Amino acid sequence: MGIFQIIKKSNRTRARLGIIKTAHGVIHTPAFIPVGTQAAIKGLTVDQLKEIGSDSLLCNTYHLYLRPGDEIVKKMGGLHKFMNWDRPIWTDSGGFQVFSLGAALEHGVGKVANIFPGEKTGVLREGEAEHAIPKKEKLTKISEEGVEFRSHIDGSSHFISPEKSIQIQENLGADLIFAFDECTSPLHDYEYTKRSMKRTHRWAVRCLEAFKHKKPAHSGRGSPNPIGRQALYGVIQGGVFEDLRKESAKVIGNLGFDGVGIGGAMGKIKSDMYKILDWIMPLLPEEKPRHLLGIGSPEDIEKAVMAGVDTFDCVAPTRLARNGAALVEGGRFNLKLAKNLEDKNPIDKKCGCYTCKNYSRSYLAHLFRAGEMLGPILATAHNLWFMENLFRKIREKLAKSK
Amino acid sequence: MGIFQIIKKSNRTRARLGIIKTAHGVIHTPAFIPVGTQAAIKGLTVDQLKEIGSDSLLCNTYHLYLRPGDEIVKKMGGLHKFMNWDRPIWTDSGGFQVFSLGAALEHGVGKVANIFPGEKTGVLREGEAEHAIPKKEKLTKISEEGVEFRSHIDGSSHFISPEKSIQIQENLGADLIFAFDECTSPLHDYEYTKRSMKRTHRWAVRCLEAFKHKKPAHSGRGSPNPIGRQALYGVIQGGVFEDLRKESAKVIGNLGFDGVGIGGAMGKIKSDMYKILDWIMPLLPEEKPRHLLGIGSPEDIEKAVMAGVDTFDCVAPTRLARNGAALVEGGRFNLKLAKNLEDKNPIDKKCGCYTCKNYSRSYLAHLFRAGEMLGPILATAHNLWFMENLFRKIREKLAKSK
Repeated sequence: MGIFQIIKKSNRTRARLGIIKTAHGVIHTPAFIPVGTQAAIKGLTVDQLKEIGSDSLLCNTYHLYLRPGDEIVKKMGGLHKFMNWDRPIWTDSGGFQVFSLGAALEHGVGKVANIFPGEKTGVLREGEAEHAIPKKEKLTKISEEGVEFRSHIDGSSHFISPEKSIQIQENLGADLIFAFDECTSPLHDYEYTKRSMKRTHRWAVRCLEAFKHKKPAHSGRGSPNPIGRQALYGVIQGGVFEDLRKESAKVIGNLGFDGVGIGGAMGKIKSDMYKILDWIMPLLPEEKPRHLLGIGSPEDIEKAVMAGVDTFDCVAPTRLARNGAALVEGGRFNLKLAKNLEDKNPIDKKCGCYTCKNYSRSYLAHLFRAGEMLGPILATAHNLWFMENLFRKIREKLAKSK
Repeated sequence: MGIFQIIKKSNRTRARLGIIKTAHGVIHTPAFIPVGTQAAIKGLTVDQLKEIGSDSLLCNTYHLYLRPGDEIVKKMGGLHKFMNWDRPIWTDSGGFQVFSLGAALEHGVGKVANIFPGEKTGVLREGEAEHAIPKKEKLTKISEEGVEFRSHIDGSSHFISPEKSIQIQENLGADLIFAFDECTSPLHDYEYTKRSMKRTHRWAVRCLEAFKHKKPAHSGRGSPNPIGRQALYGVIQGGVFEDLRKESAKVIGNLGFDGVGIGGAMGKIKSDMYKILDWIMPLLPEEKPRHLLGIGSPEDIEKAVMAGVDTFDCVAPTRLARNGAALVEGGRFNLKLAKNLEDKNPIDKKCGCYTCKNYSRSYLAHLFRAGEMLGPILATAHNLWFMENLFRKIREKLAKSK
């Protein structure tokens, strides 16, 4: 039985209105999934996140494997109990972080953020320093078996295989997990991207095999649910190359995964991404939900939904908030500017978020300029509400469309 | 008409159960007042503070005068509106911060915290660096007219007189404000302390004079209230010297203030403080509320209440929280320890705070060790609840006592 139920399909585009079913409740799609890298949305309690209306959140396997360790999370009863979030949780496979520490530094680009500003900024994305690692050193060694890499925290050596990624994600206990993939960079050429993709496909089969032997997921909120287990997404790679993307879509789409993730390099400009989505989508089985990994700036959303994407995760809204950039229709509002200090208006008069209902631009400017924690907290609440509201409107529009 | 109503007096001690009336509601005393130095409790929204049950909070005049500036706060409708807190607000006079930047650095003690760990740590108390100011330079110049001092933010020169302190506090618009005083250090000798105290008394008269010409305070929550104006506390000084403390108590107690603050050096060990309180209290008018400035570690509270103190403000509970120290009965619990990572228990099983009801020691240890903002936030919620609960119990005990 599938985890995804399509409620309605658009006639004009590939957009779908649906629900993803998990042991911890449903996710209404299209959906934005806030990222709580280290089992916490930076600055918000789970109750504040519920007030925003998020159905689910995503944690990073790589980070939690290193700290506090997946075994500890398992002993504490799994991620839901550990972080006190009783709604659906996603974990990624760790592949992207392993990649971003390796290839990106190796090519001297530092962070992938230099290539795609605001998105896919990798393992160092949550304010963590690169202090432990000399820049030019080769950090990852990829073999058929898996990936050897160094911790960004203390430089210690680790090895993750497809089987181990599944094991870690089983220990963490998220509802929706991803197969281990190599996330190639836009700097990789056709030959490397092809070789890597083929290996990712072999890894996908190994992940599925490891996944079959798993126990049921941590129990849900008590209500009986058709999906009393973790669901596994495969990940499409193939970079910016049409034949590879199409091959990967066919292979991953037709293996026994519950859903399909779209990963890897998505081109150098935004239009490349939509081109890639257009290659992939017609080849994917309709009944499987599609997740676009690490993408989710407001300007990407609507077009990607129309291209057939169901869910998105991205650190941009939360990271922008901490840096004092509030999301507003058509762009960003700089919360730090001195001229805001005499502005009684909220960030956006039409916004219904906690921050806009209660606080002025003046107060927010003061908080950011004075280095008060409450600045990033209130900006995060605004930006996540902005994203949730954006998707709420997209869902309503799809529901009403003919 | 007085702002203070005594509901009950203890027969055995000088403790009083009462309420302080303001235009923004009442404060049940004895009370702990959380400190929101820069018009924000670090890490908490006002709704989280209300959930904790705090009746009021205190902001620092010195900090808000420098940033964002009292004129801006006034333009934004006053502190209540600015920070979205509709309950009573206190502001101190700025005198302590001016002192702590001056005398303390001048004597090479850096922060007063070196003398009284955890308390009265002065202008640099909220994590702000001394970067702008060379250490040995004389930072304050005290004259009969007022105090010239340098900003800890940018080193710029400023001058505050008693009249200016009242004007700044009027602009900020708190319900309960303090007369401008010189806060002497434990390192000052008898002669200096006496000279300074006499000047503080002359300043007290000037503050009262300036205060008389004020307009009514910002309007309250709509309910008619006997105190439709700001209330002004005088501040007792006199250091550790019995005759000076007694003289100051008589002078300040009998001027036309609404309440009495107890400031300045309180000795080198805790027992000195209770000795000082015992000198002062019999000389103070019963009907005026008494505030102990900058003191409020849990271990001080009960004895100070029995000595006749009605209200306390202190940064210790919130600062300890940010440093990973949770308040528990009889001491502190170190939230950062690695061994907590496998501890499913809350900080305190008997505690009813949001943090203890929802999160384990394991999760808190993870958050602090991973540098997540949510660690300090949850610890702050716990420590402020701990303080509020401590006072709730003290009030209940007083209510039941014969």
